Amino acid sequence: MGQNPNLWLDTLSPRLVAKRIVKRQEILRSAAAAFRRTGYHGTTLEDISACLGMTKASLYYYFQSKEQILYECHRFSLEMLLDRLSQVQNSQMAPGEKIRALVKHHVNIMIDELQASAMILEIEALSPALRAEVIGRRDEYERGFRDILAEGVESEEFRGHQTKLASFAILGAINWIARWFSPAGPASAEEVGETFARVFLQGLRREEPPQG
Amino acid sequence: MGQNPNLWLDTLSPRLVAKRIVKRQEILRSAAAAFRRTGYHGTTLEDISACLGMTKASLYYYFQSKEQILYECHRFSLEMLLDRLSQVQNSQMAPGEKIRALVKHHVNIMIDELQASAMILEIEALSPALRAEVIGRRDEYERGFRDILAEGVESEEFRGHQTKLASFAILGAINWIARWFSPAGPASAEEVGETFARVFLQGLRREEPPQG
Repeated sequence: MGQNPNLWLDTLSPRLVAKRIVKRQEILRSAAAAFRRTGYHGTTLEDISACLGMTKASLYYYFQSKEQILYECHRFSLEMLLDRLSQVQNSQMAPGEKIRALVKHHVNIMIDELQASAMILEIEALSPALRAEVIGRRDEYERGFRDILAEGVESEEFRGHQTKLASFAILGAINWIARWFSPAGPASAEEVGETFARVFLQGLRREEPPQG
Repeated sequence: MGQNPNLWLDTLSPRLVAKRIVKRQEILRSAAAAFRRTGYHGTTLEDISACLGMTKASLYYYFQSKEQILYECHRFSLEMLLDRLSQVQNSQMAPGEKIRALVKHHVNIMIDELQASAMILEIEALSPALRAEVIGRRDEYERGFRDILAEGVESEEFRGHQTKLASFAILGAINWIARWFSPAGPASAEEVGETFARVFLQGLRREEPPQG
């Protein structure tokens, strides 16, 4: 994942770097929540800095533009997804277990990180180059996910669904979590991940899963 | 569904009423596509009228505000969903067949009507009264859907999933179609509906479905 060097890292002490990373995360979370409330186009840098008790000028120290914030929200989520994908791809798990691991991780990201909003934020608002990069990484994740479904169909663990449509069904259900999940509601991230993984694995598998 | 009388209907001849309904539909479709491209907040009434080759003044003849257009987009989709729900509820179908019918109808709405965008449009932009109405109808649909899942668990056609989370998974997957479906792509609405219904029914059912 090291292809995207942040140049500023080189010019700061390790302690300052760590502090800055934490602060940037905090800004991304807060911005993602604001985008979700009032839409990307309806949110200003002033709104974001006000929510954080910062001045707009100090916000500029971390991010140069609203577009950069939107881009970093996407990049952050996608890197976490792609990291886990590559771990799973390099593991010895059976396809069903790989899908379970990815579904649970993805659900966690939707619920716990960036307040369940990054993946559903508009990408249309990004300039063509950034949009292409985000779409490229998203496609990379979707392709990896689909390949595991195809692997499971080949090994006859899964039924012969159209893997492309089946993967859209699963990933769509997960991304949609951002629209209904409430941290104050009755279901935990753990429960949502477990139920989703179970429904989908049963939908995919030929036979009864090992432990219901 | 007749609880929402449109007062203007009473003052026009039947031919003009029909013409007006068609034109309103056309405006909703075009507006929904514009909201999808540039976001609700990023779209002006001028943008919408320009796409349709209308003046802003003639657009006002059909809709009083951008908010009303957004509201009508939601109302249109939700009425179609609720109509089908009540047909299905009053039928003698088994729960699995009810779910299959609803999933296929919902997929069709996402793909064919309003260019797959109405259900995913922001509802946060609506004023509290309209938002409450839209949310109320959406909840009505979700409750009906969930009741059918519970019916299937009770009759032991379905496994004992958490029906609330399972219904969110299914409805979320369908709503997400708006984000990836392209009319120019390889899958038809029919195929998407069929695959989704199959994956979900297999995820829900205890045994092998009757015809694969």
